[in-house]
Amino acid sequence: MTARDNHWKHLFAPDSVALIGASNTRGSWGYGIMRHLLASAKRKIYPVNPTASEVLGIPAYESVVNIPDEVDLAVIAVSAPKVPQVMQQCVQKGVKAAVVVSGGFAETGEQGGKLESELVKIAREGGIRFIGPNTMGHADTSSQLCTLAWVGEITPGPVALISQSGNMGHRILHNGMSLGIGFSKFVSAGNEADLHLEDYLEYLAQDEKTRVITAYIEGLREGRRFLQLARETTVNKPIVAIKSGGTKESARAVRSHTATLAGSDAVYEAAFRQAGVIRVDDDDDLCDVVTALLYQPLPRTSRIGILTIGGGLGVVAAEAVEREGLEVAHLTPATIEKLDACLPPRWSHGNPVDMAGLSMVEYPKIFSSLWALIEDENVDAILLQAPVGLGTRQLSGMFNREEIRAFQGREKSNLSLLRQRIREFGKPVLLVKPAVEFASDPEVSSLFRREGLPVYSTPRRASRVLNHLAWYRRYLDATRKNC
Amino acid sequence: MTARDNHWKHLFAPDSVALIGASNTRGSWGYGIMRHLLASAKRKIYPVNPTASEVLGIPAYESVVNIPDEVDLAVIAVSAPKVPQVMQQCVQKGVKAAVVVSGGFAETGEQGGKLESELVKIAREGGIRFIGPNTMGHADTSSQLCTLAWVGEITPGPVALISQSGNMGHRILHNGMSLGIGFSKFVSAGNEADLHLEDYLEYLAQDEKTRVITAYIEGLREGRRFLQLARETTVNKPIVAIKSGGTKESARAVRSHTATLAGSDAVYEAAFRQAGVIRVDDDDDLCDVVTALLYQPLPRTSRIGILTIGGGLGVVAAEAVEREGLEVAHLTPATIEKLDACLPPRWSHGNPVDMAGLSMVEYPKIFSSLWALIEDENVDAILLQAPVGLGTRQLSGMFNREEIRAFQGREKSNLSLLRQRIREFGKPVLLVKPAVEFASDPEVSSLFRREGLPVYSTPRRASRVLNHLAWYRRYLDATRKNC
Repeated sequence: MTARDNHWKHLFAPDSVALIGASNTRGSWGYGIMRHLLASAKRKIYPVNPTASEVLGIPAYESVVNIPDEVDLAVIAVSAPKVPQVMQQCVQKGVKAAVVVSGGFAETGEQGGKLESELVKIAREGGIRFIGPNTMGHADTSSQLCTLAWVGEITPGPVALISQSGNMGHRILHNGMSLGIGFSKFVSAGNEADLHLEDYLEYLAQDEKTRVITAYIEGLREGRRFLQLARETTVNKPIVAIKSGGTKESARAVRSHTATLAGSDAVYEAAFRQAGVIRVDDDDDLCDVVTALLYQPLPRTSRIGILTIGGGLGVVAAEAVEREGLEVAHLTPATIEKLDACLPPRWSHGNPVDMAGLSMVEYPKIFSSLWALIEDENVDAILLQAPVGLGTRQLSGMFNREEIRAFQGREKSNLSLLRQRIREFGKPVLLVKPAVEFASDPEVSSLFRREGLPVYSTPRRASRVLNHLAWYRRYLDATRKNC
Repeated sequence: MTARDNHWKHLFAPDSVALIGASNTRGSWGYGIMRHLLASAKRKIYPVNPTASEVLGIPAYESVVNIPDEVDLAVIAVSAPKVPQVMQQCVQKGVKAAVVVSGGFAETGEQGGKLESELVKIAREGGIRFIGPNTMGHADTSSQLCTLAWVGEITPGPVALISQSGNMGHRILHNGMSLGIGFSKFVSAGNEADLHLEDYLEYLAQDEKTRVITAYIEGLREGRRFLQLARETTVNKPIVAIKSGGTKESARAVRSHTATLAGSDAVYEAAFRQAGVIRVDDDDDLCDVVTALLYQPLPRTSRIGILTIGGGLGVVAAEAVEREGLEVAHLTPATIEKLDACLPPRWSHGNPVDMAGLSMVEYPKIFSSLWALIEDENVDAILLQAPVGLGTRQLSGMFNREEIRAFQGREKSNLSLLRQRIREFGKPVLLVKPAVEFASDPEVSSLFRREGLPVYSTPRRASRVLNHLAWYRRYLDATRKNC
């Protein structure tokens, strides 16, 4: 990192933070942010509030200039008209970076735009780089910094998130965490008056804690730079992005939200494809794709093996696969022979492989069939819709305690073996829960998480993920060939 | 009910049931079904097993003919080749109706087809109507009958389900129950050698316990009869159906699953539209639509008001609304005035209504805004994406215990008021959770359920539901006009 880039250290791992607008009013922004700042003992926190002697038990200062120590980062949460003056005081104090949470700038119209220009001028002249204004804050799980007001604890992990909407960011964080995704860094970009989404992208591309970059995008201020950065990044680190504002009224809403232009949807679509950016429709899709990228290999091509516990599941899965433009794989005769050897004669004798009503005592056959499919040279990826990894709740009543222990022991070693074979063959295996009760059992879902097996709610969602993975693999292959 | 229809009583509310193929082998079909049959004390249960003296502690009989009492319903779970002989014994015994769980009939090819014809001949001559073969069973929550092997307890409620796949049926049951949907009756139709999906539909159309009929369909044996019945039914009771097998490989899979023809997807699409059947893509969609049908009015037309806690949510919601072919409503000047009076000046001044970063203390403004929108004559339905109904988990840390009690009390009465206004104005209000954590809190979700407010995971899913509701309303209006 060059001296020029020092602001990143001050933004994401400051030694001291001042919160200007810290408040004792429960439920207010200044209270929520203060609580999150105090959650880590890693740094000094200085509340600034001209009318309170202390905030949450910490002595408060009338102004940032009165703070006796150095201040690396200022978080500003006062009403918009006061922000330029506060930024001036930050300059005077020698503050190194800032987060301007306050809204009421360019997003509100001409008057707010003028206020924003004034703010930028002061910060630029004073050498302060800043996030916002109109941001919901940011977070770094490794340095344990959180300037957000309303979020719970963020699970650490390898996924970074840049969002041009604080609320969409919160949705993605919560949705991701509920699926076991952990995050390295989160930035709610706000109006991007100073630091742009492109700056965050450049930083995260280099960030060792980040393996996958995700983004919610309404409009890019530096389209060319974004594409250049994305092209360089996606050969090593996937970028998964939502681009919204593609319809008339939503584009209008973008203008009054972050004061950007949504731009032509088709242009974005083409540009993302050229730069290897995986474009998804919403936060459900985003989290679905990210779980697969974290734990599964990319499929060579798009020939899908389907293994199900029942015919209807196979029908629906085959339809989902075809509607997503993937191929229902043609199994080799060798695979058919192997399946004949392990399944009851009424099995479907083709792909989708319908195991045709196995009883619970026959469930080990699911894994024998899975090994046959994963070894098939005509199969690039597998959709598995069968009750593997059953929990105590599903087994009790049906078996006694000893039988359950034996059953689960066998399942566990089979799931580990599956993990191993996925790596060995380089073929993704995506699990679709055959019935919701299986995967909603915490015992089952934690088992799947330990084994790095993402679970999807429907074949349609799993097929969409496979389509994204297959596309990304084709992109990478083509790019590497051209190098 | 005429004498001819008496088999319905024997199928769904029998006084005595024989399970032929009852078993003490844990994890087997005959064990699972026996357990479910015994769960209710409402009727006599007779296990039949030639090699066991008792099953699950109940004296077993060598054959159904040896049972000393009358047998209303026989559940047959023996291997396929033995089924005709067992059916013959049922005829001899005077059994009134049957469920043939065994697979290995027409779905496996020519040989199985012959066996199935033989079975039908015996049952017809003996006057026994039956479900199956190759069915996973059926259930009636009101008579507390369950012939399924693998399901947990089914929550009673007003939704009936006919499924041409046992496993898809189980998915829908579990998915529905996890969203608070209760079921009246469930039939896994199997191969429909005797009773057809059309028979179940005719029965459920008359069933007083059923307010909404749902179906998973691969192919119809009596297309014309289905459409006639559907047309008569949908004017009073909505029918929500998945029709699968619309692609090449999935159609092929249909043939080897339930031995039916999937037929042309376009023909089904057109026929369903003419008969008022709401066609959905998968079980996620099905459950989404059903929750709305149970608790919400149908919108007059498709002009959607969008109320969000943040701009990005509004952008994404507007895009979802437009992509689903709905309209982003133009608010009246009166509504704008009302919103100006209750929201901070930085609000979006149009639809989507972005409340622009309210702090938690300002959350009551969400309801004031909602009242303004619901009263707007240009608004037919509302997508609400804001943190209403917050749970203790979200509020604690931010407020003290007393404040939380006051906050939740206010929320609760506002939600009741919302319920009332939805009815009064005849406008559906669909909640989209602003962040996943809100709705995954059991305290919150049970509150929403009590108030009959369905919660959707994304604006896309909620918009899809509104599109279905609006279409159904148009269908009903046109149909009633023609009468």
